[in-house]
Amino acid sequence: MSEESAKNLKALREKIDDIDHKILTLISERANCAQQVAEVKKTFDADAFFYRPEREAQVLRSVMDSNQGPLNDEEMARLFREIMSACLALEQPVKVAYLGPEGTFTQAAALKHFGHSAISIPMSAIDEVFREVEAGAVNYGVVPVENSTEGVINHTLDSFIDSPLQICGEVELRIHHHLLISDTTKKDKISRIYSHAQSFAQCRKWLDSHYPHAERIAVNSNAEAAKRIKSEWHSAAIAGDMAAELYGLEKISEKIEDRPDNSTRFLIIGNQAVPASGDDKTSIVVAMRNQPGALHALLEPFHTHNVDLTRVETRPSTSGTWNYVFFIDFIGHVDNDDVSKVLTEVGSRASELKVLGAYPKGVL
Amino acid sequence: MSEESAKNLKALREKIDDIDHKILTLISERANCAQQVAEVKKTFDADAFFYRPEREAQVLRSVMDSNQGPLNDEEMARLFREIMSACLALEQPVKVAYLGPEGTFTQAAALKHFGHSAISIPMSAIDEVFREVEAGAVNYGVVPVENSTEGVINHTLDSFIDSPLQICGEVELRIHHHLLISDTTKKDKISRIYSHAQSFAQCRKWLDSHYPHAERIAVNSNAEAAKRIKSEWHSAAIAGDMAAELYGLEKISEKIEDRPDNSTRFLIIGNQAVPASGDDKTSIVVAMRNQPGALHALLEPFHTHNVDLTRVETRPSTSGTWNYVFFIDFIGHVDNDDVSKVLTEVGSRASELKVLGAYPKGVL
Repeated sequence: MSEESAKNLKALREKIDDIDHKILTLISERANCAQQVAEVKKTFDADAFFYRPEREAQVLRSVMDSNQGPLNDEEMARLFREIMSACLALEQPVKVAYLGPEGTFTQAAALKHFGHSAISIPMSAIDEVFREVEAGAVNYGVVPVENSTEGVINHTLDSFIDSPLQICGEVELRIHHHLLISDTTKKDKISRIYSHAQSFAQCRKWLDSHYPHAERIAVNSNAEAAKRIKSEWHSAAIAGDMAAELYGLEKISEKIEDRPDNSTRFLIIGNQAVPASGDDKTSIVVAMRNQPGALHALLEPFHTHNVDLTRVETRPSTSGTWNYVFFIDFIGHVDNDDVSKVLTEVGSRASELKVLGAYPKGVL
Repeated sequence: MSEESAKNLKALREKIDDIDHKILTLISERANCAQQVAEVKKTFDADAFFYRPEREAQVLRSVMDSNQGPLNDEEMARLFREIMSACLALEQPVKVAYLGPEGTFTQAAALKHFGHSAISIPMSAIDEVFREVEAGAVNYGVVPVENSTEGVINHTLDSFIDSPLQICGEVELRIHHHLLISDTTKKDKISRIYSHAQSFAQCRKWLDSHYPHAERIAVNSNAEAAKRIKSEWHSAAIAGDMAAELYGLEKISEKIEDRPDNSTRFLIIGNQAVPASGDDKTSIVVAMRNQPGALHALLEPFHTHNVDLTRVETRPSTSGTWNYVFFIDFIGHVDNDDVSKVLTEVGSRASELKVLGAYPKGVL
């Protein structure tokens, strides 16, 4: 190292130390403010709960708006979630039940949303998550809601029909699958594909049409699949960006999952109605008698009032009262005028209407 | 809410928004500095690796020294690890292999140490972790080293004997087990105890002497054990503080693990020799011929030079050359004068001596 480099490094490190000291002071000051907020709230509500999904979403959005790099918005949001999580835990750590076991994407979603200062606990079934929240043993639950092929969605949505719980938020984890090969693989001779069983399920159609004759071997994780193919010239793996980068593999087909729109979405469920944050979504469930044009009639008010639908899911009813059940997500909050007009009109056309929750749109 | 409360809340939230904006700016500035450090390093070493365990330990210690609350040192250190992890990942994300599967304490240790911006990948065996690091597929490995009862230690230490890898750091996770009961449990009628199999193993002796006749039922997690006993008046659970808090259980016996000194310790292994950070530990392995007073002779130099031993582990040798093998940890860095004197003396008395690594003492 030259003398000049050494001098430069020393100066930079001193600057970093100085910045760290300022960050430390500010985080402590923020934690103090958070404690004061809690004190004020306690004066008018002894059982006040301090986690406010709409406020958190606003803070994160504003952080991302002001962020000029070099860290990307997602990383910066992650750091702020952790800072908020630590400040909140001072007063009252959030308790969260999630669909386990540990190490699943649902746990990752819970930690992404609530930060690592939250107490999170795995449950073995979706109804158990609902029960724990209903019983008040935990403050929130995290359940997967859109992961197409595994059939979990249906179960999750059905649980809402008879539950008093509301949706308080959503989390999206961006997960894409690619077909990967190593530098020794012969592209036109792929006879074997490794992946995790769940990933195979999510790419089944694509595989059936592109590699109908390749043997599919399920291994413990996508990372393991990626590792395996390094030494096999006739093999490919299905895995995500991280594994591709880690093992230096080439993506010969990107985003091969069958339903690209809905990789993995999770819902936060709780007892709390969440005020509008300024950029919200609402989820409802509607029952209609089975008659021609029913769905069209149902969706018309959304069109008239210019409310954006983000998702419509049709399910046969499980009980007598519900002939057909539609789960509908749209942009806006039940407190918005347009939305309340739409809901009144939809309510008059449907045999039943239940608002499952209005909540901040998932922040990155 | 009174008007005054509302005004107070609004003022506090504005203050928090202002603080957040300052934190954001400082984190970005820190990330810029980190990029400049990388630039300078590249001018004299194209393959420079930017993660410096000793520098990170120094930053964390200084953060904790300056921390005046209200967040505790552990939380503050956690936030700074994440900030450093994000800044480092800008340049070059650290790749870490750990003993899997996902969701284990070893993964928790890896994420605690390297932050969530690191790329971490589970391996199914300790030798695989060593192999991945040796092959250069990852920068570091994380392996459990002291968790007494499960026998993993031996395997981990043995792997060092023939490996060129060094110990670059240590991580401790504080895990204590308690005997918990619910408010309906009759203390003197406990006939059934729930826990995870691993926790039973860690508390076996205590259970044998205190509850020799209670039935031990292994369940999927300690949290599940804690939950089960809520409705059973003759049952207790073994679990940690988090589960006790979550389910409002009473601790009737605390810290019942058989070896309280060594709950869970992990080693970071890598290719790098780590410079002194100012508060370090060194690990060595020494072979001695089997003769009377061998261990005493071996340890004498430590006493003479006032070097603190933190751990001595005796293992029968697996090969002919090593009659007896001692794994020794002590306070200090190989670059310290005292330590190098001790090592010279130990080396002259032993048939073989290998330094496994000198590294910063685990920071919280």
